[in-house]
Amino acid sequence: MPKLWDETMDAHRRAVQDAVMETTVALVGEHGLASVTMSQIAKEAGIGRATLYKYFPDVQSILITWHQRHVTAHLGRLSQARDHADRPVARLEAVLRGYAHITYKRPQDGEVAAFVHRDQHVIEAQQQLHQLVREVIAEAAEAGAVRDDVSPGELADYCLHALSAAGGLSSEAAVHRLVDVTLSGLRPSRAEDRTASHH
Amino acid sequence: MPKLWDETMDAHRRAVQDAVMETTVALVGEHGLASVTMSQIAKEAGIGRATLYKYFPDVQSILITWHQRHVTAHLGRLSQARDHADRPVARLEAVLRGYAHITYKRPQDGEVAAFVHRDQHVIEAQQQLHQLVREVIAEAAEAGAVRDDVSPGELADYCLHALSAAGGLSSEAAVHRLVDVTLSGLRPSRAEDRTASHH
Repeated sequence: MPKLWDETMDAHRRAVQDAVMETTVALVGEHGLASVTMSQIAKEAGIGRATLYKYFPDVQSILITWHQRHVTAHLGRLSQARDHADRPVARLEAVLRGYAHITYKRPQDGEVAAFVHRDQHVIEAQQQLHQLVREVIAEAAEAGAVRDDVSPGELADYCLHALSAAGGLSSEAAVHRLVDVTLSGLRPSRAEDRTASHH
Repeated sequence: MPKLWDETMDAHRRAVQDAVMETTVALVGEHGLASVTMSQIAKEAGIGRATLYKYFPDVQSILITWHQRHVTAHLGRLSQARDHADRPVARLEAVLRGYAHITYKRPQDGEVAAFVHRDQHVIEAQQQLHQLVREVIAEAAEAGAVRDDVSPGELADYCLHALSAAGGLSSEAAVHRLVDVTLSGLRPSRAEDRTASHH
């Protein structure tokens, strides 16, 4: 088969899958996971049941695939944000701002979120995210811009937990301040702080 | 009835309730919420079924009461930690260290935790906790020991989320470092930081 045919078929498959996934998320959000059927999804997405089954075996797999694509896109966006900045401290800041904004925009609850977050791919994504943050922290620590009295792994834990507060915030400005505060926790400690803290 | 009788009866009731709650948590942890019955609990706790029903209507209410007592004790311990310190910055540090250690020691998952955390009393406890932290932050900010460019409410969100990382840590020393890092995020910003951050 000519290459063009392959490419347009890929684009077609992708478009069908996207339509199926968006339809499913909307239906489950409205009616609940237990009451949404493959037939309903096929009908709403405007494709035959047989075609739907060629793409997905069940409703759950549609939601998982949908969430996996989002997670992959988010991780890709964070890597890009890192690569577009040049100095280590700017790379760190770009990754943390990017993550805080993803958390801010992400729906926090609902059945779909609860269901997809139990899946194995989420654990793997969290590990990749932790690694990405740990690496930019280590790089910035080597450049002297981040404290070196706490390991990059522990600092990454701190950052990811602190920035998860973005999920409950109500404005972009508040998200910006949260990142500022989180970043200040990473700065090399001052002599007078050390004295005050270990009184 | 004489006062002593009342007091010893209260102590007795309390001891029975405590035994019932510990038994229930252990049974549910071992066999799962769905398969534990009131009869089993009565038998294991060494009391009659009728006596058990005088204290609790069902297994769920035993778990909720057990968790409420823990939460109340934790909040009490944090208020005490605050009151035992004198300077505002020491009060803030005492509350944050106390909270981090409670989070560190707390079982993170399992069916019991998932069940009790859906209850209304947890939302109320979280609000009380947020208020406690917000107040010590506001006090320390007024004393000039905490940044005043971000509101105490937002800083309390930041602290509680950052310190939730303690749940995944593996040593008291790591918890101590997490509190140090979180506290540095609260310090009044330095002029050179402001320049670096708003490049």
